[in-house]
Amino acid sequence: MTDHLVRFDVASDPVKVPTGTLLSEAARLAGVEIGQPCGGQGRCGRCAVQITAGIARRRSTVRLSPVDVENGWALACQTVVEGDITVMVPPQEKIERRLTTDRTVADVTVPAGYSFSYVQTLRRVRLEFNPPSMDDQTDDWSRLQLALRQQAGLNQVDISLALLQKAGTILREGGWQVTAVLDVQESAESSGGLSGRLLNLLPGRVEDDVPLWGLAVDIGTTTVTVWLVDVTTGEVKAQASEYNGQIARGEDVVSRIIYAGKGDGLAEMRSLVLGTINELTQVTCKRAHAEPAEVYKAAIAGNSTMMHLLLGIPPASIRLSPFVTAVNQPPLLRANEVGLCINPEATVDSLPGVASYVGADISAGVLSSGVYETEKLTLFMDVGTNGEIVLGSREWLVTCACSAGPAFEGAGVADGMRATRGAIEEVWINGDTCEPTYRVIGGGRPRGLCGSGLISLLAEMLLTGVVDKAGNPHASRGTNRVREGAHGWEYVVAWGSETEHGKDISITRVDIDNLLRAKAAIYAGFTVLANSVGIPLDWVEQVLIGGSFGKYLNVEKAVHIGLLPDMPWERFQFLGNTSVRGAYYVLLDREARARLSDIASRMTYIELSADNSFYDAFTSALFLPHTDMSKFPTVEAALQR
Amino acid sequence: MTDHLVRFDVASDPVKVPTGTLLSEAARLAGVEIGQPCGGQGRCGRCAVQITAGIARRRSTVRLSPVDVENGWALACQTVVEGDITVMVPPQEKIERRLTTDRTVADVTVPAGYSFSYVQTLRRVRLEFNPPSMDDQTDDWSRLQLALRQQAGLNQVDISLALLQKAGTILREGGWQVTAVLDVQESAESSGGLSGRLLNLLPGRVEDDVPLWGLAVDIGTTTVTVWLVDVTTGEVKAQASEYNGQIARGEDVVSRIIYAGKGDGLAEMRSLVLGTINELTQVTCKRAHAEPAEVYKAAIAGNSTMMHLLLGIPPASIRLSPFVTAVNQPPLLRANEVGLCINPEATVDSLPGVASYVGADISAGVLSSGVYETEKLTLFMDVGTNGEIVLGSREWLVTCACSAGPAFEGAGVADGMRATRGAIEEVWINGDTCEPTYRVIGGGRPRGLCGSGLISLLAEMLLTGVVDKAGNPHASRGTNRVREGAHGWEYVVAWGSETEHGKDISITRVDIDNLLRAKAAIYAGFTVLANSVGIPLDWVEQVLIGGSFGKYLNVEKAVHIGLLPDMPWERFQFLGNTSVRGAYYVLLDREARARLSDIASRMTYIELSADNSFYDAFTSALFLPHTDMSKFPTVEAALQR
Repeated sequence: MTDHLVRFDVASDPVKVPTGTLLSEAARLAGVEIGQPCGGQGRCGRCAVQITAGIARRRSTVRLSPVDVENGWALACQTVVEGDITVMVPPQEKIERRLTTDRTVADVTVPAGYSFSYVQTLRRVRLEFNPPSMDDQTDDWSRLQLALRQQAGLNQVDISLALLQKAGTILREGGWQVTAVLDVQESAESSGGLSGRLLNLLPGRVEDDVPLWGLAVDIGTTTVTVWLVDVTTGEVKAQASEYNGQIARGEDVVSRIIYAGKGDGLAEMRSLVLGTINELTQVTCKRAHAEPAEVYKAAIAGNSTMMHLLLGIPPASIRLSPFVTAVNQPPLLRANEVGLCINPEATVDSLPGVASYVGADISAGVLSSGVYETEKLTLFMDVGTNGEIVLGSREWLVTCACSAGPAFEGAGVADGMRATRGAIEEVWINGDTCEPTYRVIGGGRPRGLCGSGLISLLAEMLLTGVVDKAGNPHASRGTNRVREGAHGWEYVVAWGSETEHGKDISITRVDIDNLLRAKAAIYAGFTVLANSVGIPLDWVEQVLIGGSFGKYLNVEKAVHIGLLPDMPWERFQFLGNTSVRGAYYVLLDREARARLSDIASRMTYIELSADNSFYDAFTSALFLPHTDMSKFPTVEAALQR
Repeated sequence: MTDHLVRFDVASDPVKVPTGTLLSEAARLAGVEIGQPCGGQGRCGRCAVQITAGIARRRSTVRLSPVDVENGWALACQTVVEGDITVMVPPQEKIERRLTTDRTVADVTVPAGYSFSYVQTLRRVRLEFNPPSMDDQTDDWSRLQLALRQQAGLNQVDISLALLQKAGTILREGGWQVTAVLDVQESAESSGGLSGRLLNLLPGRVEDDVPLWGLAVDIGTTTVTVWLVDVTTGEVKAQASEYNGQIARGEDVVSRIIYAGKGDGLAEMRSLVLGTINELTQVTCKRAHAEPAEVYKAAIAGNSTMMHLLLGIPPASIRLSPFVTAVNQPPLLRANEVGLCINPEATVDSLPGVASYVGADISAGVLSSGVYETEKLTLFMDVGTNGEIVLGSREWLVTCACSAGPAFEGAGVADGMRATRGAIEEVWINGDTCEPTYRVIGGGRPRGLCGSGLISLLAEMLLTGVVDKAGNPHASRGTNRVREGAHGWEYVVAWGSETEHGKDISITRVDIDNLLRAKAAIYAGFTVLANSVGIPLDWVEQVLIGGSFGKYLNVEKAVHIGLLPDMPWERFQFLGNTSVRGAYYVLLDREARARLSDIASRMTYIELSADNSFYDAFTSALFLPHTDMSKFPTVEAALQR
């Protein structure tokens, strides 16, 4: 047996170990602490280290990408020393960052992976006039229309009363030189001319000095996101997200609809979400040194209930059978009609939705994710407060909404919370001791469990045998983490001594049932959609995951509990907020807007509550991962390991 | 010499008089009082009586129509007894009514003398829907659009956010049966379909139960007039007039423009005129048992300043060289944008004007008076607070505005007042005694002189030699009516003992100068217009007089002072408020609206202040009636008599 020298960058001296020693054991001998939350089972990826010199054999590379491996990364618990090596142990927070599945598009500046001709409807046109004289007493508005026809090719121009009231003063202020801001459409008439709406007149300015800003907005039930876009370049100059101000009036859409139905509830809901959007507008404008009055267009996506509440349209029928919306494709409106604090004349495009529970956020997601133009059979899902699923490709699209309930948002779970500071977002359980390790958003003391934390926890409980496939406790595991609590059987994730509020954080039997129902609803949605078009689910070539949920979701664990279908890791792709990105495309491109309408009207909506096969698919999915284990071969293998 | 018996109906016994006796003398002998304000000179027509049996010779029939003469009417001072006759002496007030030139269209119910196809754009359409079901989850707005397409042939329908907010509730309230109120246009596309705007949805109503009201509005500088029209029949169901609420802020347009330019003046002016219109709307609706919310359309005419103030558009440039408006043809607006208290979705059509001082009231007048379609060379004039003139026919139209000033409205004249209760509206002066007789509006004691009273007075003063052609006093007339007052030479029309306020009512030399300038401006306008097209003024075949001024104007006396051209009485026609009538046509008829736009853009505007010949024409007209007496042959003849 040969000995080898293992040198850790964080230890002063190397250690000598025999061939075949695990790197994690070598670290222990060297006095180097490497976290192994999963108990050294090669599941959590938290013991990743970088071998900077020498060779070692990797038994497993779970959670490491081929690039990672090429760069020397290895899991300490799965790597065998077979020669002299030098090891770099990264600080813990660096690992966390590397492992986080958050691939938000926060750094998007120009659209990538999406081809569009970029036909912007906003225009700025410098106009010069012959001033009126005794020989030419043409009125101001006719003079303006003439200039727009001759100098900008606009056959027909609309103007609001408010702008008409100011036009004469502006023309004179600018010494008969102005820059006009217009929203231009191809004229319907065969003449091929343009028609449009005058949005602003700026006295004596040259075109390039007139900024044209646009807002892309996603109104999530939980979170509102705003991107501020320079529409002349397509650059996203600032973005910001904030809780939807309506949250205090109900966490899910149903409770918001109920609230909106009482007294002044609708007006209050409307003003709350407007408050949030307007605040975000202010924030982004400030960051980009823009004036809200220079924002001339807003494209807004959101689920159907959010769109109704934004526009002050009663959403009651969304909730009641036969579940119809008041409007799927709202007309174009002006900012001052909607209540947005941008230029009052700005065009507000409330993007088209499909049905009560498949809203504009989903059609925008289908646009921006490219499902509608791919040849691959694609499953697109957006699991936020609700779960919406689209199956299809460029040929056809079917969609449904799963009333997953808010369990994955942390609601309906005793110690549940939203994915915010203090939420446990990932959990590992040591297979031997049943002791958990967890990661907390923000890094401080935990306050509860968010959706991804719950999924992670449930998967670990299953893999370590704390619960069985039905979600029942394994009495045999015998650990003080498992106990009878106020609400029956529970597993303690964090003792009161570790938590922010001093109370234990547990998952109860009731919580597990809620989570089972939520994940079963979503998986049953996949099943019914696939059945509806007569296609086996495993024909799906890619799974695109949008929505804030996708930011934290650990796919492997989601497969373990049967929330996502059992497919190779590389078929899954996280796209972040596909809704705001769709709105962004619409903001920039007239063609994208036309495509979006096409998408919204082409998608076939399947009402699950009217589908006979849904209930069977749902009950079959009420197990971990599923009653039919043949659908989850990798989970079966992991369980046997 | 033969004697004849003259029998008066109001006397118990007949009188015997010789052949050749004047009927007025016979009346005196019989003890019958017949007023002769002009001193028996056959000018005033106030001694009209009806000969019911027998024959008499009429020396003159001034102010009697051929029909009157046929019916036996005769002037007592101009009629010679030549046989036994029976004479009916009408009560004084009956004569007054007959003589009043007020031919307002107060009794118009259906348009007369105007041919139009009556294509109404307002529609009410009963719609029936299949209610939504699990098999048909179409959203409400799409369902509504489909029904409008299938059941009303509308390819494209716009809806406001406010109506969209209510639509779903109304559809359900009506049990999926509603009547839709629409404003419909022919679609621009070649498809030949219709497009329109949804104005209202009424749950479960049958079409005939849904009233469709329209408002025709004329905003005069002094008076606002509203007609409430049942657009399904064309009937004017109620009408009302009221002083423009802006009067307290200035009597003429120039002072209003100045007021509007200061601080919140514009907003105040706007709200004042809106207050007047909304009050008149209430009044007319109440009379017709209509609800303001059932008024779906308003067509509004007014001079350019009034239109600007109504819409809150700064009118400043109207007043300053080169005198251009901010807008001649305002866009269609909604009632709630304009501030009218009718249905908030109602279409407000602010009618098109021509220039700063030839507004929509004139183009509407040209429409309703039929000038634009007659083959006769026509002079159309609307003398209210301003004087606008149109010359032309179906072939061409030229127009100008005379800054006549407000003298004819009673302003700028010491004892001037508006044509309201207490105003002296007609005056006769006895040629022998220089003693005046007058008629007062409302019949009570006089308070002042209105425009028609001033014209009448000036004409009488000229004919009786109280003043000469230059407006200077004839010292030789020697009467205590003529005296030196505080403002120089004056003629007393009413002694303080007769008046309401106990003070004398006079006309001063300064007043006469003001009146001369006002009438000269208007007559010069005629001259310049005729010159501009190279046509002698006496080729004019008809003179159509619109505006409130036309209600009281005594043509004969207006000719005497040289305000109107010297033409046979029958060429003059009084049309009353041609502006509101034009608005009324537009309200009923899409074709009329198209014609109005055509009229407004076809009229050639001549700016008098830029016209070299205007000043000459003006100074030539600063005489009574004119320096060139050959233009006024009948006046010359009257003066020689």
